[in-house]
Amino acid sequence: MPEMNEVREARIEIGQVCEPGDVAAHILLAVAGPQTTADVVTGRAASIPCLDEYVEGLRAAGYQDPLKAAGEALRRWHARAEQLKPASSLREQMAEIGAHYLVPEDAAWPARLLDLGLSQPYGLWVRTGSRGAGTARDARTALAACEVSLAVVGTREATQYGLEITHRIAARCRDTGVTVISGGAIGIDGRAHASALERDAAAGRRGMSTVAVLAGGIDRFYPASHHRLFEDILAGGALISEATPGGAPTRWRFLQRNRLIAALSGAVVVVEARVRSGALSTANHALTIGRDVGAVPGNITSELSAGCHALLQTTASAVIAEPDDALRLLKRPDGSYIPEGIGPSPMPNARGIARARVTDGMTEKQLAVYEATPVRRPVDVARIARWAGLSADEALGVLADFDLRGYVRRAEGKWVRTR
Amino acid sequence: MPEMNEVREARIEIGQVCEPGDVAAHILLAVAGPQTTADVVTGRAASIPCLDEYVEGLRAAGYQDPLKAAGEALRRWHARAEQLKPASSLREQMAEIGAHYLVPEDAAWPARLLDLGLSQPYGLWVRTGSRGAGTARDARTALAACEVSLAVVGTREATQYGLEITHRIAARCRDTGVTVISGGAIGIDGRAHASALERDAAAGRRGMSTVAVLAGGIDRFYPASHHRLFEDILAGGALISEATPGGAPTRWRFLQRNRLIAALSGAVVVVEARVRSGALSTANHALTIGRDVGAVPGNITSELSAGCHALLQTTASAVIAEPDDALRLLKRPDGSYIPEGIGPSPMPNARGIARARVTDGMTEKQLAVYEATPVRRPVDVARIARWAGLSADEALGVLADFDLRGYVRRAEGKWVRTR
Repeated sequence: MPEMNEVREARIEIGQVCEPGDVAAHILLAVAGPQTTADVVTGRAASIPCLDEYVEGLRAAGYQDPLKAAGEALRRWHARAEQLKPASSLREQMAEIGAHYLVPEDAAWPARLLDLGLSQPYGLWVRTGSRGAGTARDARTALAACEVSLAVVGTREATQYGLEITHRIAARCRDTGVTVISGGAIGIDGRAHASALERDAAAGRRGMSTVAVLAGGIDRFYPASHHRLFEDILAGGALISEATPGGAPTRWRFLQRNRLIAALSGAVVVVEARVRSGALSTANHALTIGRDVGAVPGNITSELSAGCHALLQTTASAVIAEPDDALRLLKRPDGSYIPEGIGPSPMPNARGIARARVTDGMTEKQLAVYEATPVRRPVDVARIARWAGLSADEALGVLADFDLRGYVRRAEGKWVRTR
Repeated sequence: MPEMNEVREARIEIGQVCEPGDVAAHILLAVAGPQTTADVVTGRAASIPCLDEYVEGLRAAGYQDPLKAAGEALRRWHARAEQLKPASSLREQMAEIGAHYLVPEDAAWPARLLDLGLSQPYGLWVRTGSRGAGTARDARTALAACEVSLAVVGTREATQYGLEITHRIAARCRDTGVTVISGGAIGIDGRAHASALERDAAAGRRGMSTVAVLAGGIDRFYPASHHRLFEDILAGGALISEATPGGAPTRWRFLQRNRLIAALSGAVVVVEARVRSGALSTANHALTIGRDVGAVPGNITSELSAGCHALLQTTASAVIAEPDDALRLLKRPDGSYIPEGIGPSPMPNARGIARARVTDGMTEKQLAVYEATPVRRPVDVARIARWAGLSADEALGVLADFDLRGYVRRAEGKWVRTR
């Protein structure tokens, strides 16, 4: 597929010169296609073809002075193009560590990324396999695994509580075949990946159980303290990044990475997060593109649950009170749940919450008789009737019904509750 | 007011014979008025006047066979009427302990109780003052205090966390002049009352800071272990019950008591509760009659927070993440908040949650320059421009702007971040 390779390499060039989420670049790509865009941003093309259309696109995107914006973008891109590395050699180097570049033109490109509109990634570096074993096919499998996935994200400063809940949710994902997507950071992210990777001792299965979306280059293990975890992720999952190999995880790229986690995942769950945090930025990206978001409540004395509570207070996020609540976010358009074995919420409805005891749903008369019947020492009907404020006939009718239901029993002509 | 006393005593008789929430009695009262109803339920009247209207009322309330239901109700009431105590002597006995009977015909009757429709109490025993000092006027003051009130309810098995949050909410109510209503039980209820009663050392004020709504008679301190607390409540608040003095706190009366807490209060907050609990029954009563309900989240590993999470998942309850969130439930119809000093929620909106750093809201170009500017060692504009992928002119423009905002500073012709 020489043509696909040209597209791929054009996009690799664009990714080297343009930051993820560079609106001017994304619009050019939409207007001119990958190869022309690569020529423009790298400076190989002397001018912008279809300039009118491009200017119109910039104006539609909110640029007050589109020509000026285009000029600035060109200077920005050309300044970087000086350090451009040949895309083909980058591909070869990355293939050696098991990383492959997938582009929107690939059949395996996740349809969900289209929800990002113009700002969908130029392409994604996908790395799998221990010691560079990952093939291009493995990379496609990794993207396919994101189809049934849950993002589990949260603070780097996680508490024991947060880590425990993360473990429970990620383990439930693993058990139901849901890929856990997270950001590879220490704290909640790391635990989510690690718990998703734990193998069922019995099954010993291995699949794309977890995907880490990185802000920096796919060849850099950041944070370094997660070196071992990243090795494990490569063995049982994948690393994904839209940054050019070697690229530093800048703050801008972290923010863009959050949008990518939100877009790749079926839904986003925030386990613990401060009110101002990257995890909430991921949740807000998710809400913006229509993904369901869940938040795990915690003690309101914990600042690390404050972000979750803020989400619950100010957005349509769902309360995640047990792992299956998280999986229930992964609903198909027809309303069915995606992981097997997950049914609709077993929560009773509002009026049903307080109902559950023997006495619930009883009529007034039944309740009166029930309460008038002693728990220990049996008494006769006349006594029960008087205590219940009923006639003896009425009381006897209710007692007979209770007897059938097993609520009371008769002992030597008297009555007593069974429990 | 001889006529008012007749009404009062008729209702005291009804309360002795009919359980709170006895639908057949409530409908009769609506159709025939208090005095005729008292005559009927006690058996002084040989038949039911306006029988057609009564039967129609029973049918409208869902009784399949209204005549049969009326007959059963009569037998139920007449069986109890045998032990009827003279209402006037009951009033005198109760006045000695500071308890007075207020009825819907009283001007001081809380308008909110009308939300209960047919099932509003026949009347309420209201007890105030240490050693029987409470006057009828004090009783009216107590009911008036419920106008600006918050119900704070929860489990008897409260954790330290639940007790601490209860304290914070009740103390905030006390500080803002909101009466705390609860059920006088051990656990959350008791702490809510006790914290509401704590006096501001400086102010030394005394008012109706808390009201306990009891399931049993107003002359019985139940639970007995709260004897001291009830004495304190009498000194700084009030006890309220619709049960006839001497009446036992039966399960039926507890359920009816919950409806009364919901109706008397401006809003209901559940601090800790199991999924099946009286506190959730109170919350559901509140939701049914249109009161706002709040629930305090907690660790999802705690079964005592599970009821709160169930409320949040299945009803329109609000997340209470801080005491003022509870007070914000007390909104006037015009949208203003009732306690002084409470403003609208300071929560940022969904999109605002993640915004707060220097870099938030920056344009792409600004962010690129910001990130390209070192924190420690100043560098020249050309270097920043190259790193940022901008022309030197562009970079300088941004740096100048940053300088004005205090984000960067110039040092010997080079640039460095200020923080």
